[in-house]
Amino acid sequence: MIHGKNLVNGEWSAKGKAVFKTFNPASNDANEWIFYEAHESELDLAIEAANRDLKTYSNFSGKKKGAFLRAIAEELEILRKHIVHAYCLETGLPDGRANGELGRTINQLLMFATLVEEGSWVEASIDTAIPDRAPIPKPDIRKMLFPLGPVVVFGASNFPLAFSTAGGDTASALAAGCPVIVKSHPLHAGTGEFVATAIKKAMDKEGVPAGVFANLNSKDHHIGEVLVKHPGIKAVGFTGSFGGGTALQRIAAKREEPIPVFAEMGSVNPVVIMPSAIKEKSEHWAGQLAASMNLGAGQFCTNPGILIAVEGEDLDRFCNDIEKAVNTQPSQCMLHPDIYEKFTRGFQRLLSKPSVSKVAEGQDDAEVNTALPTLAMVNAQTLLSDPELMEEVFGPFSILVKCRDEGERLAIIKALKGQLTLSILSNKNELEQHQELLYLAQERTGRLIINGVPTGVEVCPSMQHGGPYPATTDSRFTSVGTGAIKRWVRPVAFQDLSEPLLPDALKDANPLGIYRTVNGENTRKAL
Amino acid sequence: MIHGKNLVNGEWSAKGKAVFKTFNPASNDANEWIFYEAHESELDLAIEAANRDLKTYSNFSGKKKGAFLRAIAEELEILRKHIVHAYCLETGLPDGRANGELGRTINQLLMFATLVEEGSWVEASIDTAIPDRAPIPKPDIRKMLFPLGPVVVFGASNFPLAFSTAGGDTASALAAGCPVIVKSHPLHAGTGEFVATAIKKAMDKEGVPAGVFANLNSKDHHIGEVLVKHPGIKAVGFTGSFGGGTALQRIAAKREEPIPVFAEMGSVNPVVIMPSAIKEKSEHWAGQLAASMNLGAGQFCTNPGILIAVEGEDLDRFCNDIEKAVNTQPSQCMLHPDIYEKFTRGFQRLLSKPSVSKVAEGQDDAEVNTALPTLAMVNAQTLLSDPELMEEVFGPFSILVKCRDEGERLAIIKALKGQLTLSILSNKNELEQHQELLYLAQERTGRLIINGVPTGVEVCPSMQHGGPYPATTDSRFTSVGTGAIKRWVRPVAFQDLSEPLLPDALKDANPLGIYRTVNGENTRKAL
Repeated sequence: MIHGKNLVNGEWSAKGKAVFKTFNPASNDANEWIFYEAHESELDLAIEAANRDLKTYSNFSGKKKGAFLRAIAEELEILRKHIVHAYCLETGLPDGRANGELGRTINQLLMFATLVEEGSWVEASIDTAIPDRAPIPKPDIRKMLFPLGPVVVFGASNFPLAFSTAGGDTASALAAGCPVIVKSHPLHAGTGEFVATAIKKAMDKEGVPAGVFANLNSKDHHIGEVLVKHPGIKAVGFTGSFGGGTALQRIAAKREEPIPVFAEMGSVNPVVIMPSAIKEKSEHWAGQLAASMNLGAGQFCTNPGILIAVEGEDLDRFCNDIEKAVNTQPSQCMLHPDIYEKFTRGFQRLLSKPSVSKVAEGQDDAEVNTALPTLAMVNAQTLLSDPELMEEVFGPFSILVKCRDEGERLAIIKALKGQLTLSILSNKNELEQHQELLYLAQERTGRLIINGVPTGVEVCPSMQHGGPYPATTDSRFTSVGTGAIKRWVRPVAFQDLSEPLLPDALKDANPLGIYRTVNGENTRKAL
Repeated sequence: MIHGKNLVNGEWSAKGKAVFKTFNPASNDANEWIFYEAHESELDLAIEAANRDLKTYSNFSGKKKGAFLRAIAEELEILRKHIVHAYCLETGLPDGRANGELGRTINQLLMFATLVEEGSWVEASIDTAIPDRAPIPKPDIRKMLFPLGPVVVFGASNFPLAFSTAGGDTASALAAGCPVIVKSHPLHAGTGEFVATAIKKAMDKEGVPAGVFANLNSKDHHIGEVLVKHPGIKAVGFTGSFGGGTALQRIAAKREEPIPVFAEMGSVNPVVIMPSAIKEKSEHWAGQLAASMNLGAGQFCTNPGILIAVEGEDLDRFCNDIEKAVNTQPSQCMLHPDIYEKFTRGFQRLLSKPSVSKVAEGQDDAEVNTALPTLAMVNAQTLLSDPELMEEVFGPFSILVKCRDEGERLAIIKALKGQLTLSILSNKNELEQHQELLYLAQERTGRLIINGVPTGVEVCPSMQHGGPYPATTDSRFTSVGTGAIKRWVRPVAFQDLSEPLLPDALKDANPLGIYRTVNGENTRKAL
């Protein structure tokens, strides 16, 4: 059923001669399907079509865009069986995960549908004229958000659905009114093809122009580079490694017209374990943390990579508890042999340092490509003197950092780079005594979690999935939640444009019934 | 009364040995005051103090920040006489302009005071917990905007008040809760010193920590570069040339931790003159455009640099009218002999091209450093084949582009780079027939003006003073209006943080009475 072609200008296309296959890490064997590497002529056509249809699509009403997003969600549901099947063959992940991630992907589409159907997200603002103002008349000025133009979305290796073809970046860009060109992740091109099929069906059903969505297969970096360099592209969304994200940002910054790149590049998601948490719930947190570090074979960008605690009798007890908890964690198949090997080399390299010791490891099942969950330990001074120990090891590996005292704990926090999340395990009374810790933590992260593990990212308006560099390339935006749409839009002000020519969101009568800022007041009233 | 020192950590400081003077272009002579070039140790101390006081200042309530901004406004009013005196001596501009710009600067401060006192700008969003949700409980997540950290603001040569020491960038950053370090513009260091004095007095009066504001004098680029490279700086605001803005952006992008630079780099602010405008109001628009191109000696970033019209009998009449209107425009003193020379070289270079003709020039008063308002003409094909003709000439110079037909007019619009403003002069009926023109115009600008000239930027919530590159480095933000505050903030989400530790904006009771998004609904209600 999988044909391996690229979706370009509404047609399945295979102009390139190069082909590649995806790989099943569980069976350690290539999958049977053949994918056609996108040809530059296909890329050019996709971008040309996106720009051709930008005007039409950017003028789609919120209701029409909402219907399109809902149709994608429906078509994904219809293809669920095929998608989950391909997902599992291309990732080695269990079907529970595939089904869960598909559910999340569908919910994200529905969330953005609701957002654009309601319509207030455009931040409509109206300042009415004062023709007799002295010394000069005040003009009528009305402003709202408009799409930037065609967006390139890079599929993420670790989220074949929720951060790939129809994932959060695509859903938010389509909701904003931007055509999207997906550079499909080569590890799960088959999953991507099914998802692209669902989007194509939704486009046909809802009368969405053919240039609004394209899906390009490519195994090497070349097509991605050409996409980001192309003058027809106006923004980029990426979830992946620090190296990948910063490379794209450099390319985008060197263009004749630089464009924004929102790259979510992961982090070590530190967890501060306060004395009360160990005193009161040592076993609970040991279990939670061991499970969080091994969730999805540790392949989440919110994986807890550093645990920070002050030494003492209680910590020794916690070490025992977490050792036991990690011991029971199963080895799980990673996404690809290369990722497995990089993980294994990575954590072994850290363990080979004389000052780093192994606390615990999980169940070694002797299967191929399965990652052994591993917890290491180091003292605070060693960590502070060796920045490599604070870098992400992608996979089920965490380092427990033993601080001699509160001062060392704060020193560790201060030394942290920007993080997607930072967690503090502590009871209320204790936390109230540590405002400095709270402030330092907040300064370094996009999401501050109290008494929770970092994995599990709620998709809702209040979510911030971002954070200071190097967690992302721009801490002012998020890639999860309704706020993700703001990455793809810019305000345009209209001065003295007559009523019939104004977009509905800015008309006197407020025909969309949205919240607007009228002469500085937040209101849904008509003028 | 001017001492020439830098304001660092609350003290006037002169550690550097190098000194410089400002220049009076009207008398063509140096002003008497001596300014001390900031020493790197002063720069370091300013940044250290800014970071030291960031926590305290970022925790200031909206009311306290509002009181501080209002106090700055008051102190500026108290120093008005001194400020206007220095301004005129350092710019050659008339005192009416100085007083007007000071009024605008004061109003900007008051506007941001009102914004932060009201408080809804923080975009507070609350999603409440659902502990019994299956398969996993929903946590409580609350998000709002927080300051990025210390901001460097570069004073602009052409707005010694409204875009300099206490101008829009400074006011918006202080409103956001960010300490500000101003790199004073060397052309008006004396004006800057008076303004910094007003800010210092306001800080002392309102108990604002000494690190929250610094003012550094420097004549060369070095101090600016060191500031932007410094790890203690988290964002940059700049208004000036394309060369200057892109240089700062490159420096910021190469840092170990790249930071956002919002640079407003000007544009040619095209004005499309439609047949109806000429038929009905030729003389009116000729007068308006001639005055707009010569306003402030053409030294506004919204100066109309390109006028676009279709040829014909009516256009000939308009040419006559605008020739007369330009003829009556006075030559006016430019900000500095270097700026005057660059202007004169610039427009003469364009006029020396064989296909560019001079339509009109203003009154040559034979005074020093006064710019001769000049209008040139070129046909559309020439403009399209010579991109240099579409570059900004800073000063009172415009090019009238003659198109053979509507097709050429659209071709010109399509060839335009990003613009701060784009104006269309046309009556309602005609405009409704040109939706394609409207769409193309909107795509290329931050502000679309109907029947108005581009100079005159209303300071209000609906204003967009920005636009696609190269008008600015990031079209998603504005440097004028309340939205300017968004450049200096990022969202932080709190997951399950207990009520007493939450910021007031996120507390259940909504003690600030602000608009919030609660479970997706826009409301001022308590939970």
